[in-house]
Amino acid sequence: MRENNYVLAADVGGTNLRVAAVDGDGNIIHQNSDDTPQSGDAGDLIDSVVGNAEACITSLGNPPHAFGLAIAALVNTRAGRVFSSPNLPELNGLELAEIISSRLGVPVLIDNDATAAAIGERWLGASKNVDNSIFVTLGTGIGGGLILDGRPYRGADGTAGEIGHILVEPGGETCGCGSRGCVEQYASATALVRIANELAANGTASETNQVDRFRTGKDVFDAALRGDTLAMDAFGAMGRYLGVALADLINVLNPEMIVIGGGGAGGWDFFVESVRSAIQENAFPYPASRAELVRASLVDNAGILGAARVALDHVCPS
Amino acid sequence: MRENNYVLAADVGGTNLRVAAVDGDGNIIHQNSDDTPQSGDAGDLIDSVVGNAEACITSLGNPPHAFGLAIAALVNTRAGRVFSSPNLPELNGLELAEIISSRLGVPVLIDNDATAAAIGERWLGASKNVDNSIFVTLGTGIGGGLILDGRPYRGADGTAGEIGHILVEPGGETCGCGSRGCVEQYASATALVRIANELAANGTASETNQVDRFRTGKDVFDAALRGDTLAMDAFGAMGRYLGVALADLINVLNPEMIVIGGGGAGGWDFFVESVRSAIQENAFPYPASRAELVRASLVDNAGILGAARVALDHVCPS
Repeated sequence: MRENNYVLAADVGGTNLRVAAVDGDGNIIHQNSDDTPQSGDAGDLIDSVVGNAEACITSLGNPPHAFGLAIAALVNTRAGRVFSSPNLPELNGLELAEIISSRLGVPVLIDNDATAAAIGERWLGASKNVDNSIFVTLGTGIGGGLILDGRPYRGADGTAGEIGHILVEPGGETCGCGSRGCVEQYASATALVRIANELAANGTASETNQVDRFRTGKDVFDAALRGDTLAMDAFGAMGRYLGVALADLINVLNPEMIVIGGGGAGGWDFFVESVRSAIQENAFPYPASRAELVRASLVDNAGILGAARVALDHVCPS
Repeated sequence: MRENNYVLAADVGGTNLRVAAVDGDGNIIHQNSDDTPQSGDAGDLIDSVVGNAEACITSLGNPPHAFGLAIAALVNTRAGRVFSSPNLPELNGLELAEIISSRLGVPVLIDNDATAAAIGERWLGASKNVDNSIFVTLGTGIGGGLILDGRPYRGADGTAGEIGHILVEPGGETCGCGSRGCVEQYASATALVRIANELAANGTASETNQVDRFRTGKDVFDAALRGDTLAMDAFGAMGRYLGVALADLINVLNPEMIVIGGGGAGGWDFFVESVRSAIQENAFPYPASRAELVRASLVDNAGILGAARVALDHVCPS
């Protein structure tokens, strides 16, 4: 029987977890997924990751070369340790790479999910072969991953890329990070809903001015699709705030490309012009014109493919 | 006669220019300086740089291996081209490295002055051997240089590091960059003077509430030294704004060290606690505690030594 030549990769989020077997060309040759255990017990979560990994291994008939995990958490990549995670607090402080490695008997690498997505998009997606790019994930929060001089940049301890906490409104909305006025509170999907409901409460023209009628980002998106001006204004405001934060990053990092991914990227058509004009107003003209703004192309697979790339690079360093 | 083994380095600012011969250990073995020609003619400026370089070469008796220039400008390091400079606009768009190289017959490398200072401080100064650091220069403006993963980071075109244009006050003071509310308008030496005069105009307690009594950063510094509360409040405000911008950078870049240099660093004792508390309030706790805040140690030589290091690395790439 022919041996499968592959790595394992996982995308571990607060709601779902997925484990995939990925070959050296980035093909997903097998995968398993599960709801993320909600017991709050790290053991349950680790059992689920290991169980899904073992199911992949059994199905393929031979072990992987390594296992890369993309986790919704601040992580120390080098040490394989989770610093903290708002969505998976049971992992805080755990030497997760070592724990999973000892269970499966293969090298395990962990990475922040947005950094992994940046790596995935550079390997096979929108920023393929681009040496300096910023990946922005718009979801319930805002995450970021940096590719600088052709390599993932993680900083001294692996916590770099927290672009969701760039200040855009001093003294503004309280943020989960403990600060106020972070862009995450003004341009995430969560923020979009709040902004739309605030506009409704303030009497901005709309289909109906029913207060709190928007419950999810999709509600705002659907209203915008129907041509509702209030919903479109909410996207415009959200886009301006995002553009202000991206202007800071353009001045500091001079990237060739900014890749927007995550569920919130679905509203692209309704926010991208606001993002572009805020960048033009706030960043230096040359680097602003240089930074191409594009949508992510790997969608849900960016993180898992990036984690696979990290595992492959561990096996065969370039 | 023994041949001198050295590179040339220059620090080209709006007021002064200096050319030094530097050996492989970073010793300045000879130097010449001049006032920067104020004719606005690029030919005059280039003649002055070349003339001072030739004087060094004549004095040492043999040519240098290469010549590195630190320039107060946005530059494309790879192309050796000046994008734009508020202080030396006559250089805008010039292929400066090629022009000087053809005059002197040696390889010429140009770099942004703050990036050069970051390189100098990492080679021989406060951030010696630190792999991830941010150099901040406080002067009439605010410049920045980045060392990431042990290397200078210049971005796609060499314009990275413009940390002076991070937004800290939306809709605030108009900035030379065309935007508003940049940290340069709130934490540079120029801004410190404005803030102090604004506090005086608003009747904040002081030795005297004479409006516009502060003309230079040194006036504010001297008043603070005498215990003037208004001057100390101005430093406090300036430090808080600087800390807010540094918090953004700490979240995004997770540096081990932030090095504060430039003339404005002289007010260190009066602003550093405000910087520290603003960082603590606005950045994630772990990377905030990790980022050591220190004063530059090479003072006026950081840029010229950094330019020398760039020239040495060109001769012998590591």
